[in-house]
Amino acid sequence: MELSSIYEPVREDLLKIEDRLRLAGAAIDNPHLAELLEYSLQSNGKMLRPILTLLSGKFYNYDPDYLLPMGTAVEIMHTATLVHDDAIDSSLVRRGRPTVNKLWGEEQAVLLGDYLFAEAGALTASTGNLRVIKLFAETLKTISSGEINQAFNAYNPAQSRQEYFERVAKKTAALFSMSTESGAALSQAPEESIQILIAYGYNLGIAFQIVDDILDFISTEEELGKPTGSDLTQGTLTLPSILILEKYPEDNPVKRLFEDREKRDEVKQAIELVRNSTIIKECYQVASDFCARARRGLELLPDNVCRQSLTDLTEYMTLRTK
Amino acid sequence: MELSSIYEPVREDLLKIEDRLRLAGAAIDNPHLAELLEYSLQSNGKMLRPILTLLSGKFYNYDPDYLLPMGTAVEIMHTATLVHDDAIDSSLVRRGRPTVNKLWGEEQAVLLGDYLFAEAGALTASTGNLRVIKLFAETLKTISSGEINQAFNAYNPAQSRQEYFERVAKKTAALFSMSTESGAALSQAPEESIQILIAYGYNLGIAFQIVDDILDFISTEEELGKPTGSDLTQGTLTLPSILILEKYPEDNPVKRLFEDREKRDEVKQAIELVRNSTIIKECYQVASDFCARARRGLELLPDNVCRQSLTDLTEYMTLRTK
Repeated sequence: MELSSIYEPVREDLLKIEDRLRLAGAAIDNPHLAELLEYSLQSNGKMLRPILTLLSGKFYNYDPDYLLPMGTAVEIMHTATLVHDDAIDSSLVRRGRPTVNKLWGEEQAVLLGDYLFAEAGALTASTGNLRVIKLFAETLKTISSGEINQAFNAYNPAQSRQEYFERVAKKTAALFSMSTESGAALSQAPEESIQILIAYGYNLGIAFQIVDDILDFISTEEELGKPTGSDLTQGTLTLPSILILEKYPEDNPVKRLFEDREKRDEVKQAIELVRNSTIIKECYQVASDFCARARRGLELLPDNVCRQSLTDLTEYMTLRTK
Repeated sequence: MELSSIYEPVREDLLKIEDRLRLAGAAIDNPHLAELLEYSLQSNGKMLRPILTLLSGKFYNYDPDYLLPMGTAVEIMHTATLVHDDAIDSSLVRRGRPTVNKLWGEEQAVLLGDYLFAEAGALTASTGNLRVIKLFAETLKTISSGEINQAFNAYNPAQSRQEYFERVAKKTAALFSMSTESGAALSQAPEESIQILIAYGYNLGIAFQIVDDILDFISTEEELGKPTGSDLTQGTLTLPSILILEKYPEDNPVKRLFEDREKRDEVKQAIELVRNSTIIKECYQVASDFCARARRGLELLPDNVCRQSLTDLTEYMTLRTK
């Protein structure tokens, strides 16, 4: 299942959003800032969040005057979080390209992220819809608090699955459900439909992050566009490593790494252990459960081609390799 | 002239804003984040921006339901920029206390700043006023672009007075004029009065930053709450150092420092040079000119005690020692 066939019903407007992202720096009088914007918003991601906004807007009064700025806003907001994450983690590569902090320094990356948050906020405000404006601010609070929590718990082995799910809900699912909620609200969907799409985005977001965390163990550096095992290298426990801790409580590479961060070889051992066990299968099962929850209620939405796309997206989640 | 007598007409509501800042972390379920909020929002600053919002709201329909969240928002927004600035500059002390990055690390400081921007945005959104919501987003874009510019030009001696004023307008005056504009707009001031208060905030903000930049040369570390000469140490040209470059184009300590950043002694020499020349007087004259511009038009506002406070504030600007 190809992502391009899933977003086919909104392809034209998605291309317009890509154009807007590409041209975000064009109107800026500061050539340095324009360069930073052009580089960071060059669209080579999956564009999942704008796809969700556009698809979610297709059930009632689809109005591109609201949905295009909103779809642009969710992608810019996502980019802002990545730019800050990379700066904080001193990551050198993202999507196969040098990070902003690698090219222009951490200082510029932090400030560019601030600018991008503001730009996303300005686009959201341009819709004039108070519900999505408030949602935007609350979502940024939620994401930041999830990230603060994750950073605070770096190298802490005492984290349960439940804590992991709560963290993932904040740092990833919140923006997914904001993407669907804003699309629905801006197309005057009735509240019942909005709630279905919120729950859809939320559960899809958790599934997405679980798969992301699996891929960090089983993909190649080329597919990931960044080094394999990045999470563990940064001391972040994810579902696969939590399963290692659960299955081998006495001694295991994660425990050894967290006790002595210098033991970088343990990352490789953890990867081997995950790859050669049932852990991957179990993690995919958990992700599939969240996908099933995401589908729940979709049949109550108007029956159109976009409803099928939302269903297909839940299947794409566990099949994607990057 | 004491600041406390200037804000006397809005003292009661200013104390309420201080309470809100102090209690910002109280409702948060994450104890670590609550601690970060409590520490960073502990009000020991001058609260100039909320004072401006409250005073500007006093000419027409003053409604605390709008002005209190807005006054809280501008102070939180200001705090967010300080938290990010300190993280970026690796500053250790601010207002006489260890910085967030010193106590919890740079990572936490960047993420806390993001959270604070979002909280300020949420408070602004709670007013339901689209004009101030859009103003908030545009102002954050302006501030960030000013900061990006400043960081990009670190250790660049080829910066004119004009470029300095443009930078100051973005990084400082934008938030001052947002503070006055939001107060005016939220009290249903007529557009003509709003424009007077925007121009007032803008010019006052430039004067404020010029005096800040003077104090960085002539105050003690105790008064500043941070080391003297911080700007030059970070390679930032401000009005006093631009005057050094103008007056002694052949050779001077700023030029020597910017050519070789290791020459830390040049900072002390620059401070001595500024203190023992007419540069301070000239800089204060420029600040006074902006204060005079700020006062222009105030007489067209309704005559009340708050109008006098706004006038007094322009005089306080050049008299303050911290």
